[in-house]
Amino acid sequence: MKKIVLLRHGESTWNKENRFTGWTDVDLTPKGIIEAEKAGETLLKEGFSFQKAYTSYLKRAVKTLNCVLDKLDADWIPVEKSWRLNEKHYGTLQGLNKSETASKYGESQVLVWRRSYDTAPPALTSDDPRNPSFDIRYKGVPDTDLPRTESLKDTIDRILPYWKCVIFPNLKEADQLLVVAHGNSLRGIIKYLKNISDEDIVHVNLPTAIPYVFEFDDKLNYIQDYFLGDPEEIKKLMDAVAHQANVRK
Amino acid sequence: MKKIVLLRHGESTWNKENRFTGWTDVDLTPKGIIEAEKAGETLLKEGFSFQKAYTSYLKRAVKTLNCVLDKLDADWIPVEKSWRLNEKHYGTLQGLNKSETASKYGESQVLVWRRSYDTAPPALTSDDPRNPSFDIRYKGVPDTDLPRTESLKDTIDRILPYWKCVIFPNLKEADQLLVVAHGNSLRGIIKYLKNISDEDIVHVNLPTAIPYVFEFDDKLNYIQDYFLGDPEEIKKLMDAVAHQANVRK
Repeated sequence: MKKIVLLRHGESTWNKENRFTGWTDVDLTPKGIIEAEKAGETLLKEGFSFQKAYTSYLKRAVKTLNCVLDKLDADWIPVEKSWRLNEKHYGTLQGLNKSETASKYGESQVLVWRRSYDTAPPALTSDDPRNPSFDIRYKGVPDTDLPRTESLKDTIDRILPYWKCVIFPNLKEADQLLVVAHGNSLRGIIKYLKNISDEDIVHVNLPTAIPYVFEFDDKLNYIQDYFLGDPEEIKKLMDAVAHQANVRK
Repeated sequence: MKKIVLLRHGESTWNKENRFTGWTDVDLTPKGIIEAEKAGETLLKEGFSFQKAYTSYLKRAVKTLNCVLDKLDADWIPVEKSWRLNEKHYGTLQGLNKSETASKYGESQVLVWRRSYDTAPPALTSDDPRNPSFDIRYKGVPDTDLPRTESLKDTIDRILPYWKCVIFPNLKEADQLLVVAHGNSLRGIIKYLKNISDEDIVHVNLPTAIPYVFEFDDKLNYIQDYFLGDPEEIKKLMDAVAHQANVRK
């Protein structure tokens, strides 16, 4: 039995402030660190022992991974970081408060930007300081690959090559792999693995820092998937994610 | 101008208890974390921007590196971990208190074990639970490469191939590399770079968590080396390391 665990990072400072984050490199909150440690403890209790881990270029994911590995006494395992696992790029929305944006543009427009499959928020102009081509960490990435905004479809399109060519083939040798990333980048993997339709994937809400296990047989055929943790708590976390862009009463 | 920074990890729980650690995977103390953060702040103030970092399989080094990268806002850079950067293996001394060992065997014997160039402490027997071949993290290492004890010479002999074949050639492309490791593994690199004799290297005491910069020209010729920090403080730290095995009065 082979296993890949997907994990969404713990609470970040902009999750807390309810702002669109995307590729902005914000830190974990103290609560986010506790969530990450709890995820590590759960995986330890369940006897997980990863051979390799993958994460994005964004510190809220890297630091969630570091916390998990430390709880597993697995600080030493190889970690590969890739921009392809980054969160969906939110274009000019990055930095804006979700409730305020909903008040200004209407809940339905914001829901389209957040959750439609193929509509992207307005793109950054090339001279916008938030343009990833100004960021030293993306110096090694071809400029044509760097997004200035993304729909969920765009996000999935840049993640899947990395999943197919880098992460998944490792499962031939390894028994257990860990991927720590973001709500939308992980959606891409889940959509692909579970063959979820374009319409339905927008309603899949991944709770933060709850290990999501995918099992495969020795020929790497998908068997089943499940969350690790208390079902009641997981449902509560999923509902909270779904309602982030509601206008505050 | 190219630069490689060598950094010895911050205080570990067994540094604090004055025990021989070697390949035992002990954690940083809270003081060790503060030391690591301070090293990161120093490197940030000096404008360092690393393209890649290297560390050992031992968490006191990995976590020191994580703290430094976070202070530099460089959590995203690639990190390569290798058993070849591990501390010197102290054989059966691992776990023993340095002062007690000095009382039992005499200071001069302990000084030989700690500081002679080519005398190793007594080796672990193959059935000793501390034998690295029982540790999952060394599963990928040929058993003949795994030490059961090491002299400083042995340590240097297993580090230098990694320095020569993996770390140093990266400086052709990169401008700044970071190596976070251990007192004796870093001694091997320093001995090689500065062409220090077998007799003299045992007197080189590397302070914990003080960035040690080596500069090279564009053809990778060694130019100079220096510590970053307050000279008085560095001298005090070096003296403290030198006197760890004195019998407590």
